[in-house]
Amino acid sequence: MFDPAPILSGQRLAIARLLTRVENGNAAEALPALFAHTGRAHLIGVTGAPGTGKSSLVNEMAKALRRAGQTVGIVAVDPSSPFTGGAILGDRIRMRDLSGDPGVFIRSMASRGALGGLARATADVVKVLDAAGFDKVIIETVGAGQSEVDIARAAHTTVVVEAPGLGDEVQGLKAGILEIADVLVLNKADTPGAELALRALRAALEIGLATGSDWTPPLVQTVAVKGEGVAEVMERIEQHRAHLQSSGLLRQRERERLAAELEARLRDGLFRQLLSRLGDGQFNRLLDKLVAREIDPATAAHQLLMTEA
Amino acid sequence: MFDPAPILSGQRLAIARLLTRVENGNAAEALPALFAHTGRAHLIGVTGAPGTGKSSLVNEMAKALRRAGQTVGIVAVDPSSPFTGGAILGDRIRMRDLSGDPGVFIRSMASRGALGGLARATADVVKVLDAAGFDKVIIETVGAGQSEVDIARAAHTTVVVEAPGLGDEVQGLKAGILEIADVLVLNKADTPGAELALRALRAALEIGLATGSDWTPPLVQTVAVKGEGVAEVMERIEQHRAHLQSSGLLRQRERERLAAELEARLRDGLFRQLLSRLGDGQFNRLLDKLVAREIDPATAAHQLLMTEA
Repeated sequence: MFDPAPILSGQRLAIARLLTRVENGNAAEALPALFAHTGRAHLIGVTGAPGTGKSSLVNEMAKALRRAGQTVGIVAVDPSSPFTGGAILGDRIRMRDLSGDPGVFIRSMASRGALGGLARATADVVKVLDAAGFDKVIIETVGAGQSEVDIARAAHTTVVVEAPGLGDEVQGLKAGILEIADVLVLNKADTPGAELALRALRAALEIGLATGSDWTPPLVQTVAVKGEGVAEVMERIEQHRAHLQSSGLLRQRERERLAAELEARLRDGLFRQLLSRLGDGQFNRLLDKLVAREIDPATAAHQLLMTEA
Repeated sequence: MFDPAPILSGQRLAIARLLTRVENGNAAEALPALFAHTGRAHLIGVTGAPGTGKSSLVNEMAKALRRAGQTVGIVAVDPSSPFTGGAILGDRIRMRDLSGDPGVFIRSMASRGALGGLARATADVVKVLDAAGFDKVIIETVGAGQSEVDIARAAHTTVVVEAPGLGDEVQGLKAGILEIADVLVLNKADTPGAELALRALRAALEIGLATGSDWTPPLVQTVAVKGEGVAEVMERIEQHRAHLQSSGLLRQRERERLAAELEARLRDGLFRQLLSRLGDGQFNRLLDKLVAREIDPATAAHQLLMTEA
């Protein structure tokens, strides 16, 4: 029987052990017991391409939060290669000055090639840190693909980090990345090309404004390694949180997130139920007909669903 | 009523119009009629990070195929920003020397922020080009995230393009990207850092070999803009196709792809059926309880599925 008390009182060893179980998909008993204690932390997503310096920024954000007396959990989602693992090590070295502080808990998650599962595991890790009482939970992702963007999107406030002159221009302005920004940061604002990048981001933001939200994403310039601009980033994040609360959006986003989680679980469960009803035989016979081009996928699915209904 | 004849006889205007309908999700009638005529083209995925020169490589591959008397369809999946669109324009300019050739059909697909839908739309575009009789269909993706990797993976033969010294080392060795390579290409092999990149890729490939497939991904050096090494790339791709056929893997991959498509359609259909049985009311009442933390998502899903079963 799972005892939630050590997690709820923030015992680090208990948290670390549970997170390992979450990552191994072995926490089905624990998570329901913690769920009632979630929903209190402010979830901050920080996403950016490799080289934007988002890990340094997260590091400085955490230090600023600590100075303000807040506790912070950091979940670094890093789909770096199983071959190199370099980024994880590098990030952790950069975060060295945070370790030993009981008000900070850092967890790295590597994808090992399974990003779908990673999104769910990350959401569960966030829930554990939320239940453990951390005031802020920062979810740091490499803003490289839709899956990573989705992970960042699960936060209340999403910070998108850009930097001047990262290879071709497209890199800095990836698909949909500005649309999800609640706070936009141009890091490395003291490097050549910053002026150009700033103009490009401003222009892009102006186009984005046509979407008609009543929150205008602020554009903040930072030099994270020197701590410059970090205070303003934190201020903007707090303003965004206040906006979410006063506008009712906080409750709405929370509801949408829970609806998405329920839907994902129902989809999995429904498909498992269908397979067990059908048995492998019937599914495979239909597959044989597909391979032979005797039936097409849409018609095959329709037939199965009709006999089921 | 949809008439497949113009597509099957390769009429360009009919193909272009149908592809637009596919992109707009408006081809539900046409695709089943074409499905029986698919499965003949050799599908080649080409994936690589921005800046690796994969578009130039695809361009040269297409020219090599044309010289060998083969027809080729190119699907460029480019999740570049809706704000810039620059990459698409750039790619199309680079492919200018292919246009006007009736043996080549080029289609660009931009994500507009919906990568899940993009994967499905891309698969359908490939089916149309397959049915239209193109010998090869090249699917070009930016190897930046899991979704894009999944798109490339749907091909029979996957070519992964790397280049020396692209920002930090992780970029070149992204999560899972080498694992999916049937042919690995080091492009820009005449630039500084090529020797280092070559060694890193060889080392990574050796680790990957532990997985025990009986196909060893060859590592080919190219300078695509000069056409150097492209003939070897094409040779390796043909060898891979021969290997797929002789080993029975071609049939197996085809079966897996169709199974995945059937599963995705069944999952969508089952969830739609559930929602219509429940009505919005019951789903929303459960969601209310979730928001209030009176029930947790796993238990909520379980309860719904049990009353259904």
